[in-house]
Amino acid sequence: MNISFELLSEDNNARLGLIKTPRGNIHTPAFMPVGTLATVKALTIDQVLQTKSEIILCNTYHLLLRPGVERISRVGGLHKFMNCKLPILTDSGGFQVMSLSKSRKICEEGVVFNSHIDGKKIFLSPEISIDVQKNLNSDIVMVFDECPKYSRDKYEIKKSMDLSIRWASRSKKVFGKHNNKFLFGIVQGGIFDDLRLDCLKKLKDISFDGYAIGGLAVGESQIEMFNTIDCLKDELPIEKPHYLMGTGTPGDILGAVYRGIDMFDCVLPTRSGRTGLAYTWKGKVNLRNSRYMKDDDPLEPGLNCPASKLYSKNYLNHLVNCNEILASNLITWHNIAFYQDLMEKIRYHISNKTFKNFYDKYFSILNE
Amino acid sequence: MNISFELLSEDNNARLGLIKTPRGNIHTPAFMPVGTLATVKALTIDQVLQTKSEIILCNTYHLLLRPGVERISRVGGLHKFMNCKLPILTDSGGFQVMSLSKSRKICEEGVVFNSHIDGKKIFLSPEISIDVQKNLNSDIVMVFDECPKYSRDKYEIKKSMDLSIRWASRSKKVFGKHNNKFLFGIVQGGIFDDLRLDCLKKLKDISFDGYAIGGLAVGESQIEMFNTIDCLKDELPIEKPHYLMGTGTPGDILGAVYRGIDMFDCVLPTRSGRTGLAYTWKGKVNLRNSRYMKDDDPLEPGLNCPASKLYSKNYLNHLVNCNEILASNLITWHNIAFYQDLMEKIRYHISNKTFKNFYDKYFSILNE
Repeated sequence: MNISFELLSEDNNARLGLIKTPRGNIHTPAFMPVGTLATVKALTIDQVLQTKSEIILCNTYHLLLRPGVERISRVGGLHKFMNCKLPILTDSGGFQVMSLSKSRKICEEGVVFNSHIDGKKIFLSPEISIDVQKNLNSDIVMVFDECPKYSRDKYEIKKSMDLSIRWASRSKKVFGKHNNKFLFGIVQGGIFDDLRLDCLKKLKDISFDGYAIGGLAVGESQIEMFNTIDCLKDELPIEKPHYLMGTGTPGDILGAVYRGIDMFDCVLPTRSGRTGLAYTWKGKVNLRNSRYMKDDDPLEPGLNCPASKLYSKNYLNHLVNCNEILASNLITWHNIAFYQDLMEKIRYHISNKTFKNFYDKYFSILNE
Repeated sequence: MNISFELLSEDNNARLGLIKTPRGNIHTPAFMPVGTLATVKALTIDQVLQTKSEIILCNTYHLLLRPGVERISRVGGLHKFMNCKLPILTDSGGFQVMSLSKSRKICEEGVVFNSHIDGKKIFLSPEISIDVQKNLNSDIVMVFDECPKYSRDKYEIKKSMDLSIRWASRSKKVFGKHNNKFLFGIVQGGIFDDLRLDCLKKLKDISFDGYAIGGLAVGESQIEMFNTIDCLKDELPIEKPHYLMGTGTPGDILGAVYRGIDMFDCVLPTRSGRTGLAYTWKGKVNLRNSRYMKDDDPLEPGLNCPASKLYSKNYLNHLVNCNEILASNLITWHNIAFYQDLMEKIRYHISNKTFKNFYDKYFSILNE
């Protein structure tokens, strides 16, 4: 069976789509929980399935360091290693090389960096990144890019972007042809509209199965992020998925769907879950707050997940304050379930052409 | 519906029994996972059920400190607070007052101690402990005892034991009469057989629904522990459950069942699970060990739990070494499932009058 994307309907700029993969369908706009080290932190894979997630993301950089590719490829890839029936998207490592490695030296060939775990020198190039992602057996592979830090230095951003485009071309070449895997290009160019458009044009010339917007969620404002999407939205190929990497809050997601984005990933719901912060339809709830000691009501009454169906805020507050592992489990579970509930409602309203009303009703509440 | 105990059969000293409670049956010999702070650490209550556990233990001392009794009794007790369908046994706090509190002053009336969390002064007495346990709505209530540290000072141990007997009498009085709850007495007396026998005799005069052996697992050797059980075994009432508190390793359990014990609790399977140590039918497995990087086989092939059914030792080793929460979850789950598998096989062999063979085959392997 092949992998494909179909645009089902549009509501202004918002898009309803379907990615079919041999491992199952992904309804877009879609949120991908992050499974950094071959586990969505604090959840079993069965719990991830129960949140109605349809795809997860894993990090090539992290898996390269621990446990290393050989231990995963030996058993037939990531799905088998971590017992994941869902499709998996892997990033290329470019973002983490920027955000995590202690030192990095970039040349035309690739990048040498020091592991943030043990300082070991590691070399990554488009050829190596794609090879690793193939060995992980991921369903959606990302090109290897140079991800610059947030900067207003246009010359630096352009130099980096040009390198990323040459690396994208090499990534495509080494990826080859696959019926059951997608290769996505990544648009760079910082906060400069002309660079972004130039980058997208050149990526389209190379031709990819989907187009991601990278180099965001690196410290820019939400307005700058939305402006970047706005500048690209009419040029992103209609018949291909549009993926905003590393984003974001429920508000970010609503605003980006409004501007034509189909796919998202973010560590916020998992990371927040481990600190006692829950996302709800009334905004964020810090379950560590002593007000919840007296609150025997459920966290989010309508949500079909244990934190809300089986427990009170009183109990969750107790678990959080005692640093119980069950707190991380239940609140992460809740947050992913909430994000998927958000995506389901987004899809429902696009399908009913009522997305703008929905957006207006919830953007300010969820964007706090 | 009432609570009751029935002795079903015996195989030498080993006993097969059944505790019927309004919340379900408990087949003995039984192992009770420890749910210290109203959660069996690192597991959901559904996962606890899947291990075939039939009762859990919660700690009065810990719950008194956090979240406090009011927040639990307000919603109708522990079962509702933590969504636990199983019967719950609560200890009385005596053991933790000894092992955890910073300072304690014991008088006839009770004990004043400082919370190990915030230093707050707390007073516990037989009347208060039983009242708290009633408010927690536990199914099996333990008398409040003075639990001395391991000591060879017979005078001190006798003085403490005499106090515990007077407290047991007061506990019984304040407990009153219940058809749906058990009150267990606790035999103290350290490693002195004559004190132990004297204590048991006096507790039998007061009359309890079950008899626990306390004051063990405080630093004595396994031989001293087994000797204490041996000295008591012919005097423990046949028609009442015998509970060895705070014990132990799989080897401890085999040896104690062999000597007529029906009930056990211990933090070992949960605590070890959080450090990567797994119990198996071939002995302990430290999943942190680098040898498991190359081991794609399951941990315990015959065990019906995710750690062994869905994953390899290679994957578990990776999770442990990355300190992933899923490691704590999967290995704790495995350990409780293994303990329950052990109890099931123990019951099977008592029922078939083959327990001695089973004991001989596994005692040395499981007692490493």
